[in-house]
Amino acid sequence: MARRETPAAGPGSRALVVDVIRSARSISRVELAEVTGLTQPSISNIVRVLIDDGVIHETGSADSTRGKPRILLSINPYSRFGMGFHLGAETLTCVAVDLTGGVVGREVVPLATGENGGDLAGRLVARFADFTDGLDLPVNRIEGLAIVAPTARPGFESAGPDLAAVRAELADRLRMPVLVENDAAAAALGEFWSRRVSREQAFGSVYLSTGIGAGLVFSGALFRGASFDAGELGHLSIRYDGRPCPCGNQGCVERYASMAAVVEDARQDPELAGRLTLDGSVSSAYDVIARAAVSGDPQAFALIDRAATHLAVAVASMVNLLDLGRLVLTGPAVASAGSIYARRLRSHLARTAHARNRHPIAVELSAQPRDAASIGAAALMVQAAIAPGHTTSAH
Amino acid sequence: MARRETPAAGPGSRALVVDVIRSARSISRVELAEVTGLTQPSISNIVRVLIDDGVIHETGSADSTRGKPRILLSINPYSRFGMGFHLGAETLTCVAVDLTGGVVGREVVPLATGENGGDLAGRLVARFADFTDGLDLPVNRIEGLAIVAPTARPGFESAGPDLAAVRAELADRLRMPVLVENDAAAAALGEFWSRRVSREQAFGSVYLSTGIGAGLVFSGALFRGASFDAGELGHLSIRYDGRPCPCGNQGCVERYASMAAVVEDARQDPELAGRLTLDGSVSSAYDVIARAAVSGDPQAFALIDRAATHLAVAVASMVNLLDLGRLVLTGPAVASAGSIYARRLRSHLARTAHARNRHPIAVELSAQPRDAASIGAAALMVQAAIAPGHTTSAH
Repeated sequence: MARRETPAAGPGSRALVVDVIRSARSISRVELAEVTGLTQPSISNIVRVLIDDGVIHETGSADSTRGKPRILLSINPYSRFGMGFHLGAETLTCVAVDLTGGVVGREVVPLATGENGGDLAGRLVARFADFTDGLDLPVNRIEGLAIVAPTARPGFESAGPDLAAVRAELADRLRMPVLVENDAAAAALGEFWSRRVSREQAFGSVYLSTGIGAGLVFSGALFRGASFDAGELGHLSIRYDGRPCPCGNQGCVERYASMAAVVEDARQDPELAGRLTLDGSVSSAYDVIARAAVSGDPQAFALIDRAATHLAVAVASMVNLLDLGRLVLTGPAVASAGSIYARRLRSHLARTAHARNRHPIAVELSAQPRDAASIGAAALMVQAAIAPGHTTSAH
Repeated sequence: MARRETPAAGPGSRALVVDVIRSARSISRVELAEVTGLTQPSISNIVRVLIDDGVIHETGSADSTRGKPRILLSINPYSRFGMGFHLGAETLTCVAVDLTGGVVGREVVPLATGENGGDLAGRLVARFADFTDGLDLPVNRIEGLAIVAPTARPGFESAGPDLAAVRAELADRLRMPVLVENDAAAAALGEFWSRRVSREQAFGSVYLSTGIGAGLVFSGALFRGASFDAGELGHLSIRYDGRPCPCGNQGCVERYASMAAVVEDARQDPELAGRLTLDGSVSSAYDVIARAAVSGDPQAFALIDRAATHLAVAVASMVNLLDLGRLVLTGPAVASAGSIYARRLRSHLARTAHARNRHPIAVELSAQPRDAASIGAAALMVQAAIAPGHTTSAH
């Protein structure tokens, strides 16, 4: 991937400086110049503006071998907040994060079937007011709201409400930036920031939900593709003559390894379906199977392990194409059965990844798999605020 | 993909200015400022240095609506040259390009079996002298030599000579930069430049040879991955329980769609193998099959069309993962049967690509499929010379 050039003091420099301060937690101006390659005068200018903006503050000093003590700079976490609303099939997850991406509030409220039609914008505005009031967040420090939802897909039923219209109405009524973000992409950004991944690392995350998506972060920014549609890992074919997919393809890994596929397979197994209660939604049925698998039910385990084996084939293809060195698994399926997926992926990659003799391919589990997308989306809003033009997302 | 920030006048600006001049063929300073977003003083400085370096020159003027005629700037093509040597299985292709990436010389010489062991460096030095003498190229304007060869792959026999040692010896004896580049990556760069693809476009090329590789150009630079190993399209699995591959995986598309796979399949068909003369190397046997297919032999056509159908499955996966809008097919297999592959890829993508309702996915054929890798490698050397630190390749 791209090596970092010696940066000039342009608009990207502010973002770089903020990133370095965030990942170092506290750092002096001299060290900042060393790490970023920017000149001392550039660093002084950028730091002054960031302090004026309240984004960073001076937090004490450390001894220096060069005589005079170094003043340390840190992110001022409560100077800005970002909000993320994740529209799930049955619930709305609301998250607020501070400037370091730390979660300052979280709430999950039911979203009754049909509710995300009708006056969705009005309901979300009310939710927003309730949630920020409850947290006592100063509205003038909220940089914006990101709405997370799955993208519309050819061949699939419409995802429901017209989010472009909802977005515009919300921006108008809340008087702040509002954007709509894909779940897998938002989760990837959240993991990228919370793990303090270096900008030089090509980073991928796999989002396991009713569908399957990937988020790719290259050089510190989400990779979007020609039409903001990159990351459709679920539609990698793992068998050219395999199961037909509504998307028009055959053998899409989503048809073998998503939560929906696992539930469908389980319901077709009379013994298992008889033993476990698999009615209700895909996510609740999946959770029943996952809990049984993790508690040692051999049939349930075999079902999820087979899904993981299929997922591993697609992930190995992605790793070979992009030579990824680090992957994070996230999403609701990971919340209930993450370790089964991680084990399969690790063993499959150790046998098949092309670069396996050159570097390890780390497979990690998200610390907050159910909330990764909303946290990432909220973090995107604060990131956009501290480094305008740097993130690549608003659409 | 990443949107372009307003650039500051850093080291990347020089590369940007050169790129814009190259793609515009001729352009004024005012237009340069408009297109790049750099300030007029920055443009003036960069242009002055580029003229002093001989990289660009003033080439006349055009009328201006603003009164005073605009002086036009163009690339000075013969101020720098780059050399590319492609080490094939049986031949060495030598190419020289000028600063616009235009080919100023090309020579293919046999590389007898075994020759690429022994004193390979010595032979290449002699070839280099012969070739540049024959073209009457001033050695002090040659920016360097790129050697193109397939990368070493786990599970496969060693690619032959130790290219790291050969590279070091050549750099020492030729007294110029020498780098070793992967064939698919070099070809992608060559196509990217010769097609004047915009930096904002995510661009992919598929290299069909004895193996299969891809080259990915994002934001104008080759995407490398964690260990310079990105682009292993040949090791995307298209069938999880498919043909075993020496790499350790199963169902790798290379085992179904490479020149080697087509020849292997043909040799197992007694009727076809009896009718066509398929002895000799993989490439010569493949050429016999491809010629027959293109001339209307139904069995030969079916064989290559089936390979193309399998290739299309992997390419659709790559397109879905990265949301590519434009692809070029290149490499020796494309030289003899490119249209068969292009037709299959287009029809498969039109049915299965995830973003097909958002934008067309253009599948183009290389104009110089046999030489794309050596041309791209040679162009890489001049590119590195005009914009140091900008390309990401030397290793």
